[in-house]
Amino acid sequence: MDRRSFLKNSALGGTAAAAATLAAPAYAQGKRTLTMVTTWGRGLAGVHDAAQRVADNITAMTDGMLTIDLKAAGELVGAFEVFDAVSSGQADMYHGADYYFVGQHPAYAFFTAVPFGMTAQELANWYYHAGGMEKHDELGQIFNLKSFLAGNTGAQAGGWYRQEINGPEDFNGLKFRMPGLGGKALGKLGASVQNLPGSEVYQALASGAIDGTEWIGPWADEKAGFQEITKTYYTAGFHEPGAGLSVATNREVFEGLSPAHQKVIEVACAETHQWNLAQFLANNGTALQRLQSAGVQIRSFPDSVWDAFGRASQEVHDENMGDEIYKSVYDSAMTSMRASSRWIEAAEGTYRAQRDRVLG
Amino acid sequence: MDRRSFLKNSALGGTAAAAATLAAPAYAQGKRTLTMVTTWGRGLAGVHDAAQRVADNITAMTDGMLTIDLKAAGELVGAFEVFDAVSSGQADMYHGADYYFVGQHPAYAFFTAVPFGMTAQELANWYYHAGGMEKHDELGQIFNLKSFLAGNTGAQAGGWYRQEINGPEDFNGLKFRMPGLGGKALGKLGASVQNLPGSEVYQALASGAIDGTEWIGPWADEKAGFQEITKTYYTAGFHEPGAGLSVATNREVFEGLSPAHQKVIEVACAETHQWNLAQFLANNGTALQRLQSAGVQIRSFPDSVWDAFGRASQEVHDENMGDEIYKSVYDSAMTSMRASSRWIEAAEGTYRAQRDRVLG
Repeated sequence: MDRRSFLKNSALGGTAAAAATLAAPAYAQGKRTLTMVTTWGRGLAGVHDAAQRVADNITAMTDGMLTIDLKAAGELVGAFEVFDAVSSGQADMYHGADYYFVGQHPAYAFFTAVPFGMTAQELANWYYHAGGMEKHDELGQIFNLKSFLAGNTGAQAGGWYRQEINGPEDFNGLKFRMPGLGGKALGKLGASVQNLPGSEVYQALASGAIDGTEWIGPWADEKAGFQEITKTYYTAGFHEPGAGLSVATNREVFEGLSPAHQKVIEVACAETHQWNLAQFLANNGTALQRLQSAGVQIRSFPDSVWDAFGRASQEVHDENMGDEIYKSVYDSAMTSMRASSRWIEAAEGTYRAQRDRVLG
Repeated sequence: MDRRSFLKNSALGGTAAAAATLAAPAYAQGKRTLTMVTTWGRGLAGVHDAAQRVADNITAMTDGMLTIDLKAAGELVGAFEVFDAVSSGQADMYHGADYYFVGQHPAYAFFTAVPFGMTAQELANWYYHAGGMEKHDELGQIFNLKSFLAGNTGAQAGGWYRQEINGPEDFNGLKFRMPGLGGKALGKLGASVQNLPGSEVYQALASGAIDGTEWIGPWADEKAGFQEITKTYYTAGFHEPGAGLSVATNREVFEGLSPAHQKVIEVACAETHQWNLAQFLANNGTALQRLQSAGVQIRSFPDSVWDAFGRASQEVHDENMGDEIYKSVYDSAMTSMRASSRWIEAAEGTYRAQRDRVLG
C-alpha cells in the first residue's frame, strides 16, 4: 500500500469502526465485474489455462456476483504492463509470473522461482505454512497489490539450443531467452540474455534473433512448436525448479470486497496452484515421448556447467542482499527449503528409489 | 447411488425438466447447516486440521449460507461408522481416509494410498487430470456419495517398532497396526494386522496390545507421543507413499445444492488437499530433528524387506483383480503413475541431485 492509499483507508477505517455497532459494513452490493489482465497470449498451454481457471472458479463460486473478465496479453495492456496497470487501478487484477517484475522489486523473483531455489512442493510448504504468503503480502503493500500464488509449472526444462553445451564457456556470447534472476545468472556466464513474453519466443527463435530459449517443459514447449526449429533439448534446468504463477488484485479493490468474496479469491488461487502443477506434470511425460519420437535429442548439462550455474546464481543473490526486503525474503525461503527438503528426501526419495528398484 | 434413490431422483428430475423453461431450479433458499462427521479424534494433528479447514472455508466462502458443523469421531458416530452414516443420510458429509472403507469396496484404497502406489504429486496428477476424480465418482454412485480429495499426508513413515526389522521373517507374528491394502500385504508376511482409528493407537501401543504401529510421519507421530513408548523409527514405508484424505457428501444432499455451492465444496476440498500436504511437509523436517534429539533411532528397512513388501503388495492387488471396478481403477492409476513419474525424475529428480551436490 502506498502512503496515500494508507491514509485514505485509515480514514474510511475510522468511520467503519464507529459505525460497526450500528450496521454491517457497506460492501458493494449487486453483481460486479472485475477485469483480469494476464502476461499470457490467449490459449498459451498451461499458463493461460491457469488464469482462465481462477477466473471461471471465482465466477462460478459466487454465482456471477463477482464475474471475472479475462483479457489476455495485448487485449487491454501488454504482457509486461500488467503489474503497473493493476497497481494503478487501470485493471482490477492480473495473472502472471511475478519474476517478470524484478525491475519493480527483485524479491518478486521468489514468488515464481530463483536459480537453485525451491521445487514446487518446497514453494508450497513455504508459501502456505512457513511465512511465504506473508512475505508476498509485504511486497504487495508497497505496490498497492494483494497477491496469491495461482499456478505452477513444476521444474522447468533447461531449454532448446542450436548446439550442445559442453562447458560453461559455451554460454559466452549466446543470445538466450531467460527471464528473472536465472537470466541474470546466465548473463554472468557471458550470455546475451533477453526477456521476451511467451507469445513472442517462437518467432524470435525461428528468425535467429535468439540462439536458444527456455520456456516451460515438454508439454507446453511442444505446443509452442520449438521442436520444429531445433532438436537439442535439455531436460533439467537450474533456473526455475518449480515456477509459481500469481494473481495480484488491486489492493483497494480487494479491500472493498466482502470477506466472503475475498476468501473466494484466495481459495480459487490456491486451488489453481495445485491444479495447474498437476496439469503440467500429468502431460509432460507423454509429451517428452512424442518429442523423442519426432527426433528431439534429450541432453543433460555436464557437472562443470551445473557448478558454473551455482556460482553465478550465488553472485546474483549476493548482489541483491543489500536490499533489506530481498534479504528477509531470501532468508525466509532458504530456511524453509532446508527444513522441509530433508524429510522429503528421507521418506519420498527413499520410497521412489525402492519402488523403481523393486518394480524394475 | 442405489436403485431406490436413482428412481426417486429421476422422478424429481422429470419435474424439474418440465419446469425448466418457466423458472430457475428451486434450490433450497436461506441459510443451511450441513453436519460433517470425521474419522479423526478432535484436534488430531494434520488430519483433524484438514477437516476443519474444509468446513471453515465452505462456511466463509458462502458467508454462512452453507455452514459446516464439524463433529469429530465419537461425537455423533464412531470413526469407522462415518461412511454408512453419510451414505444413509444420517450425516451430510464426512472427512476421512477412504482406505478405511475397503470393506465397502476395495477400490476405495486408491483414494488414500495403495502399497507401491503413487506419491502425493502422482496422485494429484491422476486425480485432477488423468481420470482419478471420475473413478472416485463412479464408486460414489454405488454408495450414494459425492467424493473429493481433501487432504494428503505425503509419504508416510515406516512406523514405530519395539525391535529392529532385519529381514521379512521379523514380521511373522508381529501385532501391527496398519489399515488398508498395506495392512493386508503385511498380513502376507505373517503379521497379525489390526486396523485402529488414530485416537486409539497410542493406548494400544502403550498397553502392549500391539507390538508396533505406523501412523503418519514425524510431526503427527510426535504429537501422538509414540516416542514416549519406543525409540525405533523407520522413516520410509511402502504402504502409503502419499496418503489422500477425502470429503464425501451424501449424493442427494449434494445434488440439492445450487451449482455455486457445489463448486464451493469442490474447490474447498481441492485447496485443502494442497494446504494439508504442505502442512505435513513443512513440519516433518524439524519434528524429525526433535525426535532424534529426544533419542529416537532412525532406521531404514533392508532391501530384502522391500523385496518382500513388493511381492506381498502385488499378491494383494492380484487377489482383487477379479473385481471389474478394482481392475479399472488399478489400470487407470498405474497408467497415470508411469506416464507422469518419468518426467518428474528427469527434471526435478536431476535438479535436486545437482542442487544437493553443488550446494553441499
